[in-house]
Amino acid sequence: MRLVSYTRNGQPGFGMLRDGGVIQAQTRTEFNSLGHALRAGGLRELAALAENEPDFSLDQVTLEPPVVHPGKILCVGINYKAHIAETGREPPRHPWIFVRFPDSVVGHGQPMLRPSVSDKYDFEGELAVIIGRRAHRVERTRAMDFVAGFSCFNDGSVRNYQRHSPLFTAGKNFHRSGAFGPWLVTADEAPSPAEMKLETRLNGEVMQSAPVSDLCFDIPYLIEYCSTFAVLEPGDVIVTGTPGGVGFARTPPLWMQPGDRIEVDISGVGCLSNPVEQEALA
Amino acid sequence: MRLVSYTRNGQPGFGMLRDGGVIQAQTRTEFNSLGHALRAGGLRELAALAENEPDFSLDQVTLEPPVVHPGKILCVGINYKAHIAETGREPPRHPWIFVRFPDSVVGHGQPMLRPSVSDKYDFEGELAVIIGRRAHRVERTRAMDFVAGFSCFNDGSVRNYQRHSPLFTAGKNFHRSGAFGPWLVTADEAPSPAEMKLETRLNGEVMQSAPVSDLCFDIPYLIEYCSTFAVLEPGDVIVTGTPGGVGFARTPPLWMQPGDRIEVDISGVGCLSNPVEQEALA
Repeated sequence: MRLVSYTRNGQPGFGMLRDGGVIQAQTRTEFNSLGHALRAGGLRELAALAENEPDFSLDQVTLEPPVVHPGKILCVGINYKAHIAETGREPPRHPWIFVRFPDSVVGHGQPMLRPSVSDKYDFEGELAVIIGRRAHRVERTRAMDFVAGFSCFNDGSVRNYQRHSPLFTAGKNFHRSGAFGPWLVTADEAPSPAEMKLETRLNGEVMQSAPVSDLCFDIPYLIEYCSTFAVLEPGDVIVTGTPGGVGFARTPPLWMQPGDRIEVDISGVGCLSNPVEQEALA
Repeated sequence: MRLVSYTRNGQPGFGMLRDGGVIQAQTRTEFNSLGHALRAGGLRELAALAENEPDFSLDQVTLEPPVVHPGKILCVGINYKAHIAETGREPPRHPWIFVRFPDSVVGHGQPMLRPSVSDKYDFEGELAVIIGRRAHRVERTRAMDFVAGFSCFNDGSVRNYQRHSPLFTAGKNFHRSGAFGPWLVTADEAPSPAEMKLETRLNGEVMQSAPVSDLCFDIPYLIEYCSTFAVLEPGDVIVTGTPGGVGFARTPPLWMQPGDRIEVDISGVGCLSNPVEQEALA
């Protein structure tokens, strides 16, 4: 199933997609958010929603990130061979993990903000893995049992701030500079990640195109690694890294501009599409 | 005032310290946690609690981190000159920011866990700054107006995992490997950070000793910098970095062992004391 979180008439809600519409879940279940449902192990209860007719169409809601406030968003740097090559780095011996805060990303269709302090604003299309069961010291052979589903992620990056230190954090956490969505596709309905293809398009032109099977550290390995140090909780997110083709590595460099549209399209998962806007400060 | 968050008889609570006891706040105010009170701008309402007698003594509660679930914990790497020297690095041009997840730290008195997968477990005593007002693009000249108060922080670090990549994240986020507390001292009662002295003791022996005025990037600058990219919310935490004297830089290296006691003592703030225990996996 495809599960969305949304705002409608100023009120938060979540639900299941069916026939281009939304079956709202918070009025029919004991859960008040998709994160709540995941933490309570409620995916099976949500599946029963499918017998209802949609309550409203998708264009009547503002989509939010599928999990609105994940406890942890763990992002993986330089995890596709072509991207490693374009950054001029050596292949890593261990995953490079950095963190994004939940309020650094917006939902599908919402504007991604180019900050007023930089014009070095870049895209990174990525596959997001959403955890469905508490995971601590999980071996890779069992790791996929802990996955609730998948989504698309745009790890929007402010490159000059990213390079302020080796730690990446500043350039990866500008307010509303990334995107996450449009929905969560449950693992039982998604293709195997090895069969997924990721494409990032800027104003319709293909910028990144790679099979997810090109990952250096695959999803089971990433879950094993991250669950070695952190306790992964339902709703937590692992963002698996970006392929080659990002803007800064092009000749000349290509930066996102206000008015652009950026899309991250993953076969069998969905297409995350966002306009780019200039940040307006109060 | 000194404000604590705690668990008592399995129930979360928070309150004000007075005469070695706790005046509970959640039964006398509209707030259910210290984080909630900070977000609601309720420090003045909390001050009125002082007219009550303590409800119970401090040893009748289990202290939790003063803000139990901060939205953001932003930590600063290599921010004291002597620590920069002992790491063999150059002084940074911009703050090095990494992130700790809230469940990577415990409260005062709770065991800090040495993970089963490493014996390279090190201490880092630091001053924590707790944000009191929403801060976005705040200039350093106004930054201290956005501070609710201060606490102590032990940025417990698993060094071999920290060095798995340049990004630090793994080694800084082992479950319950750090500590935060014992309480929040409000800015009006705390000395100026420039007058604070920080001391870290392992089993009573002084390991780190430095004036907080030795910070490379001072607190106003850190707030300006972090609020450039992130929107800082009340209850968010900036952990300002550690002085020289950490275990890995000693000859021979000194690692924390189960049975140790580690203390971070900051004048005018408090003394955060924790036993070290070996992690027990379920």
